[in-house]
Amino acid sequence: MKSSAIAHSNIALIKYWGHWNKVSPELNIPLNDSVSMTKYGFSENTQLKTHTTIEFSEEFKENEAILNNNLLKGRDIERILKIINPLRKLKQIDYKFKMVSFNDFPTQAGLASSAAGFAALTIAAAKALNLELTQKALSAFARLGSGSAARSIHGGFVYWHRGFSHETSYAEQICGPDHVDINAVIAIIDERRKDVPSDIGHELAKTSIFNTIRVKKSHEQAEEIKKAILDDDFKKFGMIAEKNCLFMHGVMMTSEPALFYWNPLTLSVIKKVLYIRKSENLDCFFTIDAGPNVHCFCRPENIEYIQNMLESIEGIEKTILVKPANDSYTTNEHLF
Amino acid sequence: MKSSAIAHSNIALIKYWGHWNKVSPELNIPLNDSVSMTKYGFSENTQLKTHTTIEFSEEFKENEAILNNNLLKGRDIERILKIINPLRKLKQIDYKFKMVSFNDFPTQAGLASSAAGFAALTIAAAKALNLELTQKALSAFARLGSGSAARSIHGGFVYWHRGFSHETSYAEQICGPDHVDINAVIAIIDERRKDVPSDIGHELAKTSIFNTIRVKKSHEQAEEIKKAILDDDFKKFGMIAEKNCLFMHGVMMTSEPALFYWNPLTLSVIKKVLYIRKSENLDCFFTIDAGPNVHCFCRPENIEYIQNMLESIEGIEKTILVKPANDSYTTNEHLF
Repeated sequence: MKSSAIAHSNIALIKYWGHWNKVSPELNIPLNDSVSMTKYGFSENTQLKTHTTIEFSEEFKENEAILNNNLLKGRDIERILKIINPLRKLKQIDYKFKMVSFNDFPTQAGLASSAAGFAALTIAAAKALNLELTQKALSAFARLGSGSAARSIHGGFVYWHRGFSHETSYAEQICGPDHVDINAVIAIIDERRKDVPSDIGHELAKTSIFNTIRVKKSHEQAEEIKKAILDDDFKKFGMIAEKNCLFMHGVMMTSEPALFYWNPLTLSVIKKVLYIRKSENLDCFFTIDAGPNVHCFCRPENIEYIQNMLESIEGIEKTILVKPANDSYTTNEHLF
Repeated sequence: MKSSAIAHSNIALIKYWGHWNKVSPELNIPLNDSVSMTKYGFSENTQLKTHTTIEFSEEFKENEAILNNNLLKGRDIERILKIINPLRKLKQIDYKFKMVSFNDFPTQAGLASSAAGFAALTIAAAKALNLELTQKALSAFARLGSGSAARSIHGGFVYWHRGFSHETSYAEQICGPDHVDINAVIAIIDERRKDVPSDIGHELAKTSIFNTIRVKKSHEQAEEIKKAILDDDFKKFGMIAEKNCLFMHGVMMTSEPALFYWNPLTLSVIKKVLYIRKSENLDCFFTIDAGPNVHCFCRPENIEYIQNMLESIEGIEKTILVKPANDSYTTNEHLF
């Protein structure tokens, strides 16, 4: 009853921000459909993946979870149990577990480490419990740990149907990683843990006067960008993603209290991207999650040029090059 | 038929952004009521004022306007004629004019130089033409040059009724400069002309999905901040002003194309203000017009401390200390 899985982080193109309040916020049912690209990091040693091993045994006396060599406790263990408890219930066992997990990239710094982490956990745990679950069911269970983890079950480009219940809120693949040639350069501005974790931020969404219209518009944009991806219309893809990012940050900055996930350097990168696009007529588009780091989408042939442009900005610590990843998967490489 | 006037710039607390489109945009009828503080700069040599002299004569062959020693032409002359033409019509003369004007602060850098400029021009021209106009009528005529000039006719704190026609869209004083003790430190981030002038930006307001709700909310906030001013409730004053500023920049950043008036340093100042307020429990609040510079409101006893805090930020070129100004006025000091 020991299994391992590897899952990749994802970057939202149409953002998930705020929970639907007619069900428990614990279910992470979002206010709107969202769309993402699952990311494979191909520069240096950062693949943007989480590798997780979990074992269930009647001999274990305690639940134990270790992430990047740190023993987890409190809120971090609670989030793991949000997935493990319903899976154990489904299997009708109450064995304790041991989990060991590694991220090969910064944790809780706005790079969706929780998306990769909870997707890997769900796949590994389902396998360890010998549960035969569909991709759809795996996506729904992953969502319980972190909303965006629902999307990291799948590779390529992914559509998360907001749904109205645990069973109906899940992500499915729009197309695999080879359907369109889209890459991104991530400008790393700050790798530290962010001050306000996303799950706290989600609760504030409804305090912004802009939230209702953002939700409505995001629904429309999710369908539009899905079409742009399937049509390989990169310009439309980029313009929609960029606009949706600004909608989310507009809501964040006008919530109560106001949330500023941007750093001064974030704005430098935004302006650089706009400048390159305008002055050099080069298709590149930014998006920013709940953190200061900026993802710049481009065609593969421009990725080095964009990387050099971003690294020329004083203060940019490093960049990560990414392309669409494959599906998350189980592996026989165990971490203990 | 030569007269001179002095008017001060103002800083919007409830912002004017976007024109009501059921009348000519030339009339500068705004989408919402707005509120401002007319500013007197008391640090160094910058009083934030415009001094204007104008003369009408049947001997002049051409209209001639000189601002800061530069002969104006094209769009700049057109804007002057927007005020002068209706005033000449009212007087039933068609004499040409000569105008000389000086700003003692940067022009078109988001410090409302046009507000001070067109208020001074209106007062001087009405006097030169020997027109006996009410403050209300002067405010309406000043609006034709630049919307926010309607507010700079008056000193202290000012309420601009959006209105529905030339006659009904004018500003009036809420209270004089001595009613409440409110000062501000302006962090000067960039004194150059901004890339996108406000009147171009106004045209883009309606392309943002957030515009409609911003307009509705701004109307409510105008009444709320008026009450906060009259009640001398500084905390409420600051929180409303800050929120309204973020509403406007949220609209700007999500318009089509997106407008980014902030610089990286603008965000540094925003974060500094939030930090001082939170960690030191000191009442200070930011607002930002259509430009990168930041106004930080505080009580007079804290102004030096806030100034030092802002000047400690690397890259801040200088600061300007301001307090509420007196009404604009005519003067016998002629510039030619």
